Amino acid sequence: MKFDLVIVGAGSGGYEAALYAHRRGMKVALIELSPESVGGNCLNRGCIPSKYMRHGAYLIEKFQKMPSYGIIPHGFDLDMQKLKENRERVILTIRESFKKFANQLKVPIFYGRGILKDEETVYVEGQDLKVKADFILLATGSSTVSVGGIVPDGKHIYDTDQIWDLDRFPKSVLIVGGGAVGVEFAYIFRMYGCEVLLVEIKDRLLPSDDIPEESSRYLARKLKKLGVDVKLKTSVESWEKTEEGLKVRLSDGSEPTVDIILLGVGRKPNTDGIGLEHLNIKRDHRGFVVVNEFCQTSIKNIYACGDITSPLMLAHKAMYEGRVAVSHILGDKDIRKDDRLMPKIIYSAYEIASIGLTEEQAEEMGYDVKVGVVSFVSNPKAMDDGENEGFVRLVIDKKSGDLLGCHILGPHAGELIHQIVHLMKADLKVDFVSKSVYSHPSLSEAIGQSAAEVYWGSLTWAKRH
Amino acid sequence: MKFDLVIVGAGSGGYEAALYAHRRGMKVALIELSPESVGGNCLNRGCIPSKYMRHGAYLIEKFQKMPSYGIIPHGFDLDMQKLKENRERVILTIRESFKKFANQLKVPIFYGRGILKDEETVYVEGQDLKVKADFILLATGSSTVSVGGIVPDGKHIYDTDQIWDLDRFPKSVLIVGGGAVGVEFAYIFRMYGCEVLLVEIKDRLLPSDDIPEESSRYLARKLKKLGVDVKLKTSVESWEKTEEGLKVRLSDGSEPTVDIILLGVGRKPNTDGIGLEHLNIKRDHRGFVVVNEFCQTSIKNIYACGDITSPLMLAHKAMYEGRVAVSHILGDKDIRKDDRLMPKIIYSAYEIASIGLTEEQAEEMGYDVKVGVVSFVSNPKAMDDGENEGFVRLVIDKKSGDLLGCHILGPHAGELIHQIVHLMKADLKVDFVSKSVYSHPSLSEAIGQSAAEVYWGSLTWAKRH
Repeated sequence: MKFDLVIVGAGSGGYEAALYAHRRGMKVALIELSPESVGGNCLNRGCIPSKYMRHGAYLIEKFQKMPSYGIIPHGFDLDMQKLKENRERVILTIRESFKKFANQLKVPIFYGRGILKDEETVYVEGQDLKVKADFILLATGSSTVSVGGIVPDGKHIYDTDQIWDLDRFPKSVLIVGGGAVGVEFAYIFRMYGCEVLLVEIKDRLLPSDDIPEESSRYLARKLKKLGVDVKLKTSVESWEKTEEGLKVRLSDGSEPTVDIILLGVGRKPNTDGIGLEHLNIKRDHRGFVVVNEFCQTSIKNIYACGDITSPLMLAHKAMYEGRVAVSHILGDKDIRKDDRLMPKIIYSAYEIASIGLTEEQAEEMGYDVKVGVVSFVSNPKAMDDGENEGFVRLVIDKKSGDLLGCHILGPHAGELIHQIVHLMKADLKVDFVSKSVYSHPSLSEAIGQSAAEVYWGSLTWAKRH
Repeated sequence: MKFDLVIVGAGSGGYEAALYAHRRGMKVALIELSPESVGGNCLNRGCIPSKYMRHGAYLIEKFQKMPSYGIIPHGFDLDMQKLKENRERVILTIRESFKKFANQLKVPIFYGRGILKDEETVYVEGQDLKVKADFILLATGSSTVSVGGIVPDGKHIYDTDQIWDLDRFPKSVLIVGGGAVGVEFAYIFRMYGCEVLLVEIKDRLLPSDDIPEESSRYLARKLKKLGVDVKLKTSVESWEKTEEGLKVRLSDGSEPTVDIILLGVGRKPNTDGIGLEHLNIKRDHRGFVVVNEFCQTSIKNIYACGDITSPLMLAHKAMYEGRVAVSHILGDKDIRKDDRLMPKIIYSAYEIASIGLTEEQAEEMGYDVKVGVVSFVSNPKAMDDGENEGFVRLVIDKKSGDLLGCHILGPHAGELIHQIVHLMKADLKVDFVSKSVYSHPSLSEAIGQSAAEVYWGSLTWAKRH
């Protein structure tokens, strides 16, 4: 069996690369651990089920605003079984559609662990099968890790693989880690009626250089308002099982008791046991596969994409890199790996989207930074929707007018940010953004206004007569 | 009193132009009929209150989907008084903010009818005031019209100015006209529990060349599913008041009885009584002020924007043209009137957004048309949100790769369309759209996929092995 391309891993990256390679006329095959893991972490235990529950949480929050629309609800009950069933149904639909589609397109999926044998051969463990191809793409993704003495057991302590098994909502939960996963689950559990304690060891939620401090501050305030107990600069020192639940000792000396603990604290690349060592494929000191801008590993015809290439573990980064690899195999030079242009989107009590540099990062890099900030508070569409909280924060280089970054917190930020992704990718400048067309009323108007603020000067600072 | 610029009309166009002119250092004044009409039709009797109610309708529709998220609501009551109060509060907040802001910026608003006296003078009726300026911008907007024998009386028959006065929901309503206004109110009234009969004289809803037939079909199907009685190729022949309500005779011979009739049938430009004739400012045969690509009228220093310049009566068209006029006054040549790049967005049972040409329009113009259609049915984010209906329809020229138009029906179409607005404005081609970055999961992915469909060929038609 010889293919043009064999892809190890049918998660977001592998799946997208397979469809793209097929679209471009390649004979392609996929290798994936099992029929149940097609779609990878994102589909089965990540973004898709969490976004499903997040939409439920958003609907529950909406109840508070309904009377303003003349809708007086009589209350509601919660039914986690129904939530779980329907969440699983969405996953299953996507997974089975993909398998059916691959089958229709005659893209075979071989089930078992794929292990590199030589530069053109992947061995499929369990099936005792060798798949040969001119090119190989590694897309094996990442796994959860634990911290210190808190080891997930799926009974008291859950990681993000296990949390989906919960059959009922706990009365209370301690979430360890205020990153993307932590703040998302904090919102979900809180809206579904749980007492939530969120601890983060650093001094802010979303403690990432890519995310402006303002976003962290807004989110912490909102989560607190919704009743989440947010503790910063705090860690878990120990825990023990008692009659009442899990008694936890925190670094601030407090000793709360909770039903369960959820760990949302990072992942490691799946680079062990896939035969990298047979071919001496280079890894960096953190274990990531070293690739060039075309996603080529140290072996010319072997490519890698997604979570195994860098700590930026985003499904769409994997998908984009999958396309970069396939394009390069086909001789294209115009599409390259570019972590700078990867939007980061967090779905918590707000949607929080970031692309490019923050003000601080841009200043450190020596740009002549100017920032245009526009609030959603007075955005008419956001007011109509009862969601007028948040901001658009556009970071530009004053000298060149280049768009350096954009940070949106508020309604549908995850879709709005794409406008700036495209404009940055096209090297368009702030004057273009300020002169483009924005429908009225729309949330998008705030983007145009943020550009006007920097390009023409702030209205409030403008010349007064 | 002499200004750089005086603007007649403080609706969307005038308001935006005033802020923009101020931002760019001009001494500017506004003239508006009364303090209550600041913000114009869009704010006071158009897009803003209707989008408010539309969000309420959307929330009511969401009730049906809540059980899938484990939320079992106990039902709800409707309270139109609360809806009305809160809707009015949003309008008032926006209107008063603008007045306060104008005051802070020292942009005076003179109240009364503005009438052109000479090339540099506008007379403010009622105040017996003459305002002088080097440049004048006319932004007087449009008014409702009636059709045939159906004359709005604000009691039985309402136009879109009067409908806001309703103190309770009618049991039943006949909506005349299946254009943007008609389909929007049909959805709102239906979700708020009214029996709705929607009649349209043409053979489809949204009977506009700019909107693909597919959008009309989707919308009609959905409205019917929600219980709206949609009658196409049907007109109102007569009506009479009876004991039971208004007995209407339709062209199909049926004689339904309804509580009220709502007319959603077009508007006329406000070009009478503003002194155009004193200066011989040219109008076309339909009564629109003739302007060039810089929004200049036949008098060099007098400009016009918005509803009075063409039948494309959109708030953001007025706002954009206001900026075009001010830019031209200041010597810029790089921003021009461009109706082609004006997105049209309809908020009904779906959001329906269009930019540029439909397939049919493009073919008529001689383009070598190719269309990429991607459904939201299998879009993971749309599935997570329980809103996976609709499509992205991208129209391109095969030869050049130029983006000719895009038509989106589905969740948040009104925001998504801006990606294509910017890309068309920047003259970017379909390969750019297909190679850009889209976060996963996002609705925006469907845009990238629609470009891939046309650029690389449809997956289903792709080479099979």
